[in-house]
Amino acid sequence: MGADALSTRHQAILDQAVAAARSRIFFSAYPETPSGKIYGETAKAEGEAAFQALLDKPFEPGPNQVGAETSPWGPSLGITYPALDVAALVARAEAAQPAWEATPASHRAGICLEILYRLNRQSFLMAQAVMHTTGQGWAMAFQAGGPHAQDRGLEAVAYAMEELSKIPGEVTWSKPMGKETLTIRKTFRAVPRGIGLVVGCATFPTWNGYPGIFASLATGNAVIVKPHPAAILPLAITVRIAREVLTEAGLPADIVQLAPDTAQQPLAAELAAHPAIGIVDFTGGPAFGNWLREHIGGRKPLHTEEAGINPVVLHSTDDFAGLCRNLAFSLALYSGQMCTAPQNIFVPRAGIATNEGHKSYEQVGAGLAAALDALLADPARAVGIAGAIQNPATLERIAAARRLGEVIRDSAPIPGQDAARTATPLLVATDSDAGAAWGEERFGPIAFLIACPDAEQALSMAASSTRARGAITALVHSTDDAFLATAEHEFARAGVALSENLTGGLFVNQSAAFSDYHVSGANPSGTSCLTDAAYVANRFVIAMARRPVAA
Amino acid sequence: MGADALSTRHQAILDQAVAAARSRIFFSAYPETPSGKIYGETAKAEGEAAFQALLDKPFEPGPNQVGAETSPWGPSLGITYPALDVAALVARAEAAQPAWEATPASHRAGICLEILYRLNRQSFLMAQAVMHTTGQGWAMAFQAGGPHAQDRGLEAVAYAMEELSKIPGEVTWSKPMGKETLTIRKTFRAVPRGIGLVVGCATFPTWNGYPGIFASLATGNAVIVKPHPAAILPLAITVRIAREVLTEAGLPADIVQLAPDTAQQPLAAELAAHPAIGIVDFTGGPAFGNWLREHIGGRKPLHTEEAGINPVVLHSTDDFAGLCRNLAFSLALYSGQMCTAPQNIFVPRAGIATNEGHKSYEQVGAGLAAALDALLADPARAVGIAGAIQNPATLERIAAARRLGEVIRDSAPIPGQDAARTATPLLVATDSDAGAAWGEERFGPIAFLIACPDAEQALSMAASSTRARGAITALVHSTDDAFLATAEHEFARAGVALSENLTGGLFVNQSAAFSDYHVSGANPSGTSCLTDAAYVANRFVIAMARRPVAA
Repeated sequence: MGADALSTRHQAILDQAVAAARSRIFFSAYPETPSGKIYGETAKAEGEAAFQALLDKPFEPGPNQVGAETSPWGPSLGITYPALDVAALVARAEAAQPAWEATPASHRAGICLEILYRLNRQSFLMAQAVMHTTGQGWAMAFQAGGPHAQDRGLEAVAYAMEELSKIPGEVTWSKPMGKETLTIRKTFRAVPRGIGLVVGCATFPTWNGYPGIFASLATGNAVIVKPHPAAILPLAITVRIAREVLTEAGLPADIVQLAPDTAQQPLAAELAAHPAIGIVDFTGGPAFGNWLREHIGGRKPLHTEEAGINPVVLHSTDDFAGLCRNLAFSLALYSGQMCTAPQNIFVPRAGIATNEGHKSYEQVGAGLAAALDALLADPARAVGIAGAIQNPATLERIAAARRLGEVIRDSAPIPGQDAARTATPLLVATDSDAGAAWGEERFGPIAFLIACPDAEQALSMAASSTRARGAITALVHSTDDAFLATAEHEFARAGVALSENLTGGLFVNQSAAFSDYHVSGANPSGTSCLTDAAYVANRFVIAMARRPVAA
Repeated sequence: MGADALSTRHQAILDQAVAAARSRIFFSAYPETPSGKIYGETAKAEGEAAFQALLDKPFEPGPNQVGAETSPWGPSLGITYPALDVAALVARAEAAQPAWEATPASHRAGICLEILYRLNRQSFLMAQAVMHTTGQGWAMAFQAGGPHAQDRGLEAVAYAMEELSKIPGEVTWSKPMGKETLTIRKTFRAVPRGIGLVVGCATFPTWNGYPGIFASLATGNAVIVKPHPAAILPLAITVRIAREVLTEAGLPADIVQLAPDTAQQPLAAELAAHPAIGIVDFTGGPAFGNWLREHIGGRKPLHTEEAGINPVVLHSTDDFAGLCRNLAFSLALYSGQMCTAPQNIFVPRAGIATNEGHKSYEQVGAGLAAALDALLADPARAVGIAGAIQNPATLERIAAARRLGEVIRDSAPIPGQDAARTATPLLVATDSDAGAAWGEERFGPIAFLIACPDAEQALSMAASSTRARGAITALVHSTDDAFLATAEHEFARAGVALSENLTGGLFVNQSAAFSDYHVSGANPSGTSCLTDAAYVANRFVIAMARRPVAA
């Protein structure tokens, strides 16, 4: 189908997305419920079969096959991918770029939405691909890897179209000059920055990758997708679908390319530094993030999501049981491997006031530990919530963290999951003085219950650690409106998204497209927000031509 | 007057400015005509008297007086300014920041517009200050230093308000969850990045300084203005007026501070690198620009305007006399010291077709030289157009440039201006092979008439030099629509603002607020456009707080 027809087909969804990004009320274009009624009764089985059919062979034919993905659930995937070098990737992107640039913005949006539509139809396949690369439980792999990621991609397209729509195509400018008028015809065009590079991560390859991919595509940039070597498949499927849509629309497939690499011969730095790369999006650790900020950030637009230490501050609550249940779920969900998962729980040493009376620091720890135990008591349920551990190094971090204080609740493998790498949350008691323990990110199912002099100092330490080391989310519990107002002020200045008094069905880890701004850019957890105007507005520049109109 | 009243007073102008920045039709809030009917019959004399009253004394009392401004028109100004060190400047800005951040955005806009209104009333004083620091002729000093700069400042406020207005204050988010609904109250706030540093230049201290000053102010950031040591006064007057308005509104004056320094002990690098500085705006040379891009650009938003080599491509014309007249004016205006002035005139070696018949390369050069001579024949008119030379080093560059080819028209002082440092345009014939001559910026009244194999190669060289060394403007003359279309495409991809077939009252040097996007950010002439959404959108971040609504 041509790009014009795709544009027409998807215009209504795009309009809704633009309106939702502005109003920030609830909106979702892609159903998060993995229901046969929505996706078709055979969709789940077909997705699983499609995944099985991909295993133990090249994903595409071609030379220089790379790939050694191993499922955190056990098996090696046995899939390889043809790899190009940087020069070849760039040459192909540059060859494809003019056709993409010449495609009207509304048609590019139509292409992007068709890609997202087809990705949505493949959400069950994507669930398998995400589950068996990241270690997410199936339900999260479906939702976060599928519809939620697709919503984030659509959100980026909506922002891009909103910004592009501001630039008038042609204007007649008439300036009164005394008795005469100077009349000039001006034409404006949005010029893409160049080739967008998207460097993916191992835990949420689609959710974190789609904003950059679709923001760069919608603004007219060809895109090279460099997946994490441990999570190639989800982005390989994404790129394959994108190339199919482009080809069917009569456009060069190389507008979107996959750039698989290996841990031994990484491509990301060489790609990012290439002069033809005009934009870099990166999700991953601060080591490479820092390299990018040092070497790339001053030369081209750079959008990163790196690491942070997400704080929780407990002041008081009128639902202690709900607090413990809700926070336990946030700690257990995907075994703390979400960039939004809490790590540091700051609690007054003297305890907190609750609806169940005063709870000492020890009782708070016991309450949380009990809630974790209850949540994870059923191994089948536990494995669905906690998933598997993406990286073996996380197990080493858990072992080391046990020695950082008194273990309130120990981490353990989930029973019956011998083939998988699993670990339930570790909860360690420590003191606010022990910054060496809690003051850095310890990625994985590791949390600290930090005894603080009082709630005010708990808040102050949480905010200052956010400024120093970064955080994406913060959670506070208080029945005191003044304390909440102070928390809102402090965490806003630290650039972190604050949740308050969560005791029910919303969790601090969750960030909803079109409403929750994910990452602020104001602390070390990342340079940019997914998604706001700043995230898209520097992916193109504005060029003008002006000519006097004959009198 | 309080900020709320100022907001009301200026709302209509702000609304018009927002609309104009969107439509990009002609708009100006501040009259460019230095007329007594507009500004008051005594305004000119009062401005001149006010300037005289500032000479030969401290601008403000205080310790550590610095300042050694000398007018390019002759006299030393004898004005000194109290200087603070970086620690003191930052401490004062940080002390003032919370009050500014707490001021509602609409009130901040009212303050900004009141500052601009008062600056406008002082345009005759500003004309003197700009003339006697930059060397601009009086008419340009009035227009570019006064109303045009004020329009650029207003444009930045308009863009800031447009971006800030996108962020809803409070939203109720209701997500259907099966039979239940998850209802969350979300509040959003725009959080300023920190302190804005604006590093001014010596040629257009207000025109280039106001966008950064007002963009940072309007988005809630305190601002430190670090003027060029050779052009402190225009920004000192600006800062004084800003502080008066802030004080009258009951806000801390230190929301805007002046940071004068000396060439011997420059402050800009230390300020830019200070962790409390959240945004850097810089206009100046690529040496410091490159340092900023290397050391600052990856850490905080950086907006630069640096240098470029603005090209002209002559293909053909139906008004040869008009072409020569118009281009001669562009070369002579402020002696080529505008960032938008042409340097390189690419001409086919075989000449061009014109309404006066074929003109050889030599005849084009002769025509331009004759037009320059005619334009500058009357010394009084010449000095009004060409002004004086801001920096003595420019005279050395002219002397060196004479040896780079055959002199078609020599530079000379303007007769009768013995006290001033003046120099009319030098026009040098050279060949397209001689990239060593024309391939770098030679700031000042220096232009090259470059003989090219043909018009296509002329265009191609002009575009490639733009990509390699930067350019802010380009000019093309052609009667061939296909050639113009190619030029539009090539220069758009090089990120340069193109003017076509200028023979009348519009000049390539001119860039009008609210319509002409000044600098694209896509070539080495600068990182950012004055002004687009990208210029303002990263001066604040968005913070959220969310709380479940009790069922």
